Amino acid sequence: MKFLRHGPAGAEKPGLLAADGTIRDLSGHVADLSGAALSPEALAKLGALDVDSLPVVNAATRLGPCVAGTGKFICIGLNYSDHAAETGATVPPEPVIFMKATSAIVGPNDDVLIPRGSEKTDWEVELAIVIGKTAKYVSEAEALDYVAGYCVSHDVSERAFQTERSGQWTKGKSCDTFGPIGPWLVTKDEIADPQNLGMWLKVNGQTMQDGSSRTMVYGVAFLVSYLSQFMSLHPGDVISTGTPPGVGMGLKPPRYLKDGDVVELGIEGLGTQKQTFRADR
Amino acid sequence: MKFLRHGPAGAEKPGLLAADGTIRDLSGHVADLSGAALSPEALAKLGALDVDSLPVVNAATRLGPCVAGTGKFICIGLNYSDHAAETGATVPPEPVIFMKATSAIVGPNDDVLIPRGSEKTDWEVELAIVIGKTAKYVSEAEALDYVAGYCVSHDVSERAFQTERSGQWTKGKSCDTFGPIGPWLVTKDEIADPQNLGMWLKVNGQTMQDGSSRTMVYGVAFLVSYLSQFMSLHPGDVISTGTPPGVGMGLKPPRYLKDGDVVELGIEGLGTQKQTFRADR
Repeated sequence: MKFLRHGPAGAEKPGLLAADGTIRDLSGHVADLSGAALSPEALAKLGALDVDSLPVVNAATRLGPCVAGTGKFICIGLNYSDHAAETGATVPPEPVIFMKATSAIVGPNDDVLIPRGSEKTDWEVELAIVIGKTAKYVSEAEALDYVAGYCVSHDVSERAFQTERSGQWTKGKSCDTFGPIGPWLVTKDEIADPQNLGMWLKVNGQTMQDGSSRTMVYGVAFLVSYLSQFMSLHPGDVISTGTPPGVGMGLKPPRYLKDGDVVELGIEGLGTQKQTFRADR
Repeated sequence: MKFLRHGPAGAEKPGLLAADGTIRDLSGHVADLSGAALSPEALAKLGALDVDSLPVVNAATRLGPCVAGTGKFICIGLNYSDHAAETGATVPPEPVIFMKATSAIVGPNDDVLIPRGSEKTDWEVELAIVIGKTAKYVSEAEALDYVAGYCVSHDVSERAFQTERSGQWTKGKSCDTFGPIGPWLVTKDEIADPQNLGMWLKVNGQTMQDGSSRTMVYGVAFLVSYLSQFMSLHPGDVISTGTPPGVGMGLKPPRYLKDGDVVELGIEGLGTQKQTFRADR
């Protein structure tokens, strides 16, 4: 199933994408796509509802972030060997993890604000994992039991803030609107192999990233297990698993996003996003 | 005023510490100490209630984290010149910021769990700022208008996870229970000068840290302004401002916390915390 959240920012309602392509409202059945509603069992129950009984939502309605109640937005750095190479880094012996502020989360097609003082705002298409049940000290073999599903994540990054403004990447990853997620939370039963999904990103129509989760170094099950050794993962937590090659900082010369640029991105089976970048005046 | 949250973990109610030392319940007046309830105006209104009309809470009641709805737990690294020196680092030209998972937050006197595999769990007494109103691109001069108050923060850290397990400090800072905050959210009117507060920490009764916020490099108003240039700060966000000298990793030889160790810490005017460290078996 493909779950989503529709409506104005901050007042989104739960919904799903029906097989006929219509958006259907779920607010008569669940308060929001957060907490206990994200367990695989709860999602299966929602998916088993008679779709024809669910109100149709105007197709032009804004989509919000596809999951609510995100307590942690964890990102994996340098998790594609070819992306590591383009940034001049080597693949680390263990996953590099950092946090993106949850206040950066926006809908998949919302405008992204280029922060004041930014000259190096960059793109990164990423496969994100959405946690469905609390996970602590779980093994790799059982890790997927704790996953609700997957979504597209755009890990927008300000490279100067990230790497030239005194240690730790958080600073260049957490700006408001730097975390579009969605359009859908796609339940894991729909994704036969999360390690074999095509993923792409275009800037103003030009393809910049064209990769596959096949070249991910640390895979989904490993990452959930690994992270759960350090901290509990809770329903609604999002893990963005790193980006394939083709980011702006890796180009020669580097290229960064400017006011008015349009970025489109997508992952096989998980839908697409489209954002206009705007200077935050 | 000194606000607090009392009751079992996950079901805390709002309260305050009365001048006579009793804990009074505020749940008849406010749902929780989060969001709009943290604005300086809303807190002043709560502080103006007739204390005698508020129910007395059993003094032995557990205290929870002194603020709810924390979306971001931001920490400042190496923000005391003498602490930077003891860790072998130099004071950075701009604040080093990193995130602690909000899922690490616990009450001031709750047990702290030493994660499995940890051999270097360390202590850090810190002055924390609690945000009261949304702040974005605010100047240093107006920064304190956005602050609800202050509290004691124990930035518990696992040094091997932080520095020996592949880049970014988050990994060693975000373990469950690694973020005791409280006992009280002390409104800023009670703290004449946040840059002149004695702060201390003892392990099993032995003083390990005995410093003052006087030696903080980047002060409270600067930090709020600085962070707001990178991301919006929201009510309930907590900024832990760094630790003075005396952490375990700075000792020769280094000393780390073991199952059964008791840590007490406090800051002038902000109260004290006491935790027993327990192996997370």
